[in-house]
Amino acid sequence: MHYLNKDDLQAMERLPRVNLINSLSGYKSANLIGTKSNDGKTNLAVFSSVIHLGSSPALLGFIMRPPVVPRHTYDNISATKLYTINHIHTEQIANAHQTSGKYPEDISEFSACDFKEEYFEDFAPPFVSESRIKMGMRLVEEIPIPSNDCLLIVGEIQHLLLSDDYQKPNGSLDLNQAETVAISGLDSYHSTQHLRDMPYVSKKSLEL
Amino acid sequence: MHYLNKDDLQAMERLPRVNLINSLSGYKSANLIGTKSNDGKTNLAVFSSVIHLGSSPALLGFIMRPPVVPRHTYDNISATKLYTINHIHTEQIANAHQTSGKYPEDISEFSACDFKEEYFEDFAPPFVSESRIKMGMRLVEEIPIPSNDCLLIVGEIQHLLLSDDYQKPNGSLDLNQAETVAISGLDSYHSTQHLRDMPYVSKKSLEL
Repeated sequence: MHYLNKDDLQAMERLPRVNLINSLSGYKSANLIGTKSNDGKTNLAVFSSVIHLGSSPALLGFIMRPPVVPRHTYDNISATKLYTINHIHTEQIANAHQTSGKYPEDISEFSACDFKEEYFEDFAPPFVSESRIKMGMRLVEEIPIPSNDCLLIVGEIQHLLLSDDYQKPNGSLDLNQAETVAISGLDSYHSTQHLRDMPYVSKKSLEL
Repeated sequence: MHYLNKDDLQAMERLPRVNLINSLSGYKSANLIGTKSNDGKTNLAVFSSVIHLGSSPALLGFIMRPPVVPRHTYDNISATKLYTINHIHTEQIANAHQTSGKYPEDISEFSACDFKEEYFEDFAPPFVSESRIKMGMRLVEEIPIPSNDCLLIVGEIQHLLLSDDYQKPNGSLDLNQAETVAISGLDSYHSTQHLRDMPYVSKKSLEL
């Protein structure tokens, strides 16, 4: 068995520690978040922290690191209350990861990283045209996480756009068919292979 | 293109809606959370909401639904401030999913679902012996999410136990080698296939 305690982790050099800790939660979602500033500049950034929060209302969250450096995604969401979440699929990995570069404010990651902006009805922020599963979000609340000054950004789904009919008979989307990828650590991208769907564990089925 | 707006989502029947919304964030982590009550009863429950929050200190979070029904995991964490997070690997899927059944308080999911308790030094809650990547956690804070009365439970890693040396040269763990699985929706389990690791996008590398 290999063992590290809290002090061993803290004593590691920064980069190996960041890589290690980032891989400990397990697989993470892979999304591009699109925003537009009030003066019309678009922004796109890769996030591995988008999570499900609830289905009625339909809420998703993501983690925003402390705003100690310019964070255009955060600034635009704070100012406009709107953003898009777009699944990353297998063919988009290199371009999606490239959005993590620190581009100047006047450069849009859409053009710098070869994504096409797509607009839907009167919803202001851009969707990623190439993505297959995308959502228009309205900011509901920003929740501070005191222990490390991050923010949990909570938003409600306003629009759900699917490039194909990915719904399975039970209502869920077939993410394999959409080729949505998963992330581990900071930078490791994976496709998935469906193993099995498990039935709801009813009270009756408990083998007591 | 297939399209649903906020009202379409809200108008869906409960189960298809829950299944659909749960699949929209993308792939989710697959973990078993182990706890022990102050009077020595152990509990084990599958969670797909464990997320990375920060690496210094090493913080993981997970979402706890509103405590309107008995939630033994929550009660034990509140009372003891300690818990374990254990990755689910491919061979554990059926037993891990079975822990989502509503077992009475005096039945431990460890025995009901065929997992072996493992104890490390003087850390009170049980680890899952069969898991390959497992962490002993100390509760740091419970953060209310006002928009749907869920809680974000934040904990710091105290112990990291690995059944093998899964560390890659950059420090991150090779989750493919550990056969850690990913979840989509409520009940769909997937193995992964590594596609590529992307380099850090340096300022220099920006193609402006």
